[in-house]
Amino acid sequence: MEPLAELQKHFAEIHNLNQASAVLGWDQRVCMPPRGAEARASQLATLAKLAHELFVSPETRDLLLAAEEKGNSLPADSDEAATLRRVRRDFDKADKLPSSLVVEMTEVCSLAEEHWANARKENNYAAFAPWLTRILDLKRQYVQAMGIPAGRVLYDVLLDDYEEAMTAHTLDPLFAELKAATIPLLEVIKAHGDVVDPGIATRECDEKLQEEFCRRVLKECGYDFDRGRLDRAVHPFCTNFSQNDVRITTRFDPHWFAGAFSSCLHEMGHAFYEMNIAPKYEATPLAGGVSLGVHESQSRLWENFVGRSRPFWQHYYPQLQKTFPAAYGNVPLESYYAAVNRVTPSFIRTEADELTYNLHIILRYEMEQELLNKKLSVSDAPAAWNDKMKRYLGLTPPTDREGILQDIHWSGGGIGYFPTYTLGNILGAQLFAAATRALPGLQGEISQGKFSSLFEWLRENVHQHGRKYVPRDLIRRATGQPLTLAPYLTYLRTKFTEIYKL
Amino acid sequence: MEPLAELQKHFAEIHNLNQASAVLGWDQRVCMPPRGAEARASQLATLAKLAHELFVSPETRDLLLAAEEKGNSLPADSDEAATLRRVRRDFDKADKLPSSLVVEMTEVCSLAEEHWANARKENNYAAFAPWLTRILDLKRQYVQAMGIPAGRVLYDVLLDDYEEAMTAHTLDPLFAELKAATIPLLEVIKAHGDVVDPGIATRECDEKLQEEFCRRVLKECGYDFDRGRLDRAVHPFCTNFSQNDVRITTRFDPHWFAGAFSSCLHEMGHAFYEMNIAPKYEATPLAGGVSLGVHESQSRLWENFVGRSRPFWQHYYPQLQKTFPAAYGNVPLESYYAAVNRVTPSFIRTEADELTYNLHIILRYEMEQELLNKKLSVSDAPAAWNDKMKRYLGLTPPTDREGILQDIHWSGGGIGYFPTYTLGNILGAQLFAAATRALPGLQGEISQGKFSSLFEWLRENVHQHGRKYVPRDLIRRATGQPLTLAPYLTYLRTKFTEIYKL
Repeated sequence: MEPLAELQKHFAEIHNLNQASAVLGWDQRVCMPPRGAEARASQLATLAKLAHELFVSPETRDLLLAAEEKGNSLPADSDEAATLRRVRRDFDKADKLPSSLVVEMTEVCSLAEEHWANARKENNYAAFAPWLTRILDLKRQYVQAMGIPAGRVLYDVLLDDYEEAMTAHTLDPLFAELKAATIPLLEVIKAHGDVVDPGIATRECDEKLQEEFCRRVLKECGYDFDRGRLDRAVHPFCTNFSQNDVRITTRFDPHWFAGAFSSCLHEMGHAFYEMNIAPKYEATPLAGGVSLGVHESQSRLWENFVGRSRPFWQHYYPQLQKTFPAAYGNVPLESYYAAVNRVTPSFIRTEADELTYNLHIILRYEMEQELLNKKLSVSDAPAAWNDKMKRYLGLTPPTDREGILQDIHWSGGGIGYFPTYTLGNILGAQLFAAATRALPGLQGEISQGKFSSLFEWLRENVHQHGRKYVPRDLIRRATGQPLTLAPYLTYLRTKFTEIYKL
Repeated sequence: MEPLAELQKHFAEIHNLNQASAVLGWDQRVCMPPRGAEARASQLATLAKLAHELFVSPETRDLLLAAEEKGNSLPADSDEAATLRRVRRDFDKADKLPSSLVVEMTEVCSLAEEHWANARKENNYAAFAPWLTRILDLKRQYVQAMGIPAGRVLYDVLLDDYEEAMTAHTLDPLFAELKAATIPLLEVIKAHGDVVDPGIATRECDEKLQEEFCRRVLKECGYDFDRGRLDRAVHPFCTNFSQNDVRITTRFDPHWFAGAFSSCLHEMGHAFYEMNIAPKYEATPLAGGVSLGVHESQSRLWENFVGRSRPFWQHYYPQLQKTFPAAYGNVPLESYYAAVNRVTPSFIRTEADELTYNLHIILRYEMEQELLNKKLSVSDAPAAWNDKMKRYLGLTPPTDREGILQDIHWSGGGIGYFPTYTLGNILGAQLFAAATRALPGLQGEISQGKFSSLFEWLRENVHQHGRKYVPRDLIRRATGQPLTLAPYLTYLRTKFTEIYKL
């Protein structure tokens, strides 16, 4: 067998272990009975340990070296060269990571997720604090093991795991510009707040009918239930175990249909990415989305640029009225459209509007750096959170449940992850603008409930490539431009100026 | 670390891999979207391969030898000695098995299960036949790898995996005696068949209410939903990923409440066994039920000896009438009791009554041996099946869906498995008779919906021991007797003589 083929066969086993972990993770959040947590943590730890050991084994090193030697003359743009680049990058990272740290991180994070869930339920930050301390400490150990490259900072090492080559140095000015644009816009909107009726979006809608409506729209957008499923989870997520088993979750609330619906479209965007990667990449090092930022661009694109657009609701609103006649039978389309786009400072990130959402992210982005750099202690973190909330959004969370305890990410070890959400918004706008240039009839199609040309454009320009190109190259190929904030700022200003009649 | 402790730590990793496989298996049958099957087969193959490789590794051999050397003077009755006996037995088996055969069996069986499900749906035996051929061939390869011990036959090697030390030589006379007793009893019952109204058990009952009723009874019997869950599956089963995550499934049919209910109690009996093994055995070689026959004795005990008894329905029937007033409001207890115990030859094993059930098993037991020994070809198997059905039960299946395609077992590689069902019936009767001797008030308690002393007796005498004792020793300790058919024959004759007024 050729060295590269051997390397890929070896990699497929590691891939299968990781996919098995993903199944166990999905089950833990969707199905597992409460008492199952302890054994599950141990099972996940074993799978992670074995995957890590197989990956950093002398076998990988030898196969990689042999394949690299043989692959010297491969065209830089070939799948083979991309495969070798990917494996080399990941191998060098994993090679630096002690197996004991992998086990500890997996075990601690799995248990911490359970403790976080209880702490949130009981509004008891003190019960979660020791777990956050342990996780931060493990993250610092991780950075130490990786080493901080010259000219980079501690945080960049964590960021790079989610968004290759991204740095605080790049994000800081991007986020600063966005913040500088958002806060005055928010102030003006607040002054025109009475344009939107806040009661419209919270009208009671039967949960079962909500779910049926969500399922129908998912299907019409192109989500294939033969290759996926929709379930309920406290914190909506998408996960996949192959290109043909890509699952999404949402949560339903009788008084927040728009929340359940947006989560569905959001996770569907993630799912489309994983479902549409070129089949030849399945179970290879090029399988999967290339980065969290690009992934998030896909979820935001469907959730907001499509699912909160006027054309979209021109098509679906009559159906919504028919499904919930008591709630929406007498509400005009324009009022509903404004209501689902209402801008108002709020406590919960996942329920935030498009505009204030980024302020939630910038808050976390700053706090993560302060916590990691020990400029902020874990015990002071709730107060710091509340202080920032007050300064950016003008609100003080009544309890930590609506504050620092709201997100699952830190409990699962996801530090350096949050900024990719706002990066996703920025990239989503950039990609949607490019798609709109390429498909002049797009808005008209959406207003007729037709999504196939957008679906196809995204498949062709983003999805199919999997991990072949680094994010910045993928974006440049798809949009003809480097990462830019301009389309997002234009989108936000245009949309909210129009809705709020500014 | 002591050699035994090291061995157990090593074993715990293998155990975790196997439990992860169990999660993937549960998901495959309960949740997985149809197109996920191919990747799932590959994931299961990797997990099985790695578990096998870890288990047959030089590390296991060395740790086992070191622990055996050190454990020479351990009391024969100690947990430590039992652990070493177990690992030695399993190691010697696994050591003989080529890794390639493990991978192939896992992959073929996983795919064959999907093909069986489709073949059954479409009543297309020809689509399943090549898979059955492959599985039989793999089983013969397996026996060849194991070697047939002196004085044993090919079939014994497969049987031993499910029921340690059991042989066709032991089963043949036992099954012959049971068959000889069953057929004349069945003939007499047929002549008195009009005693029972066959329409009672098929009255329409709302599925949602069926499920609620099942959940309530499960809970009252002692099933802990914090450590398990109930789902739907085509073929009901019980699986566990730890002592604290033991899941059961059933199927609902609006015209067959008794079927759904019996499956629930059946799988609950399996679940009780796994939930009540001594916690000290968790993730050790002594974890889990000792054999399929003993496992089945627990499921049959709850399904039939409890759940089809008059005292049980004296308690639950008024509640059932209240739940389904249209179906049962006017049906007397005695008529319902007779209906759920109705004896009538039928096509589907899982829906068979207590008496004819064993004829279904004996048919499969005979056919498995004929197929393995090539006295019967795969293409002739449906005709052979139908011929035996005619001779034992007086029926000819209208299609293979009601015949040879009905069971999942062969498609999953479970050959040598079926006889443990009837063995379970026999052992269940023997254990229930012993419990009744030890707990003179038992029937009275059951008639008041109290199950705790039976639950506790089983936990004490059977469950807690896990795999510490070989089946025959466990049975002798629990009942004071070796394996005996007498209590089962007495039970069958007494019960049906009374119901059918023979």
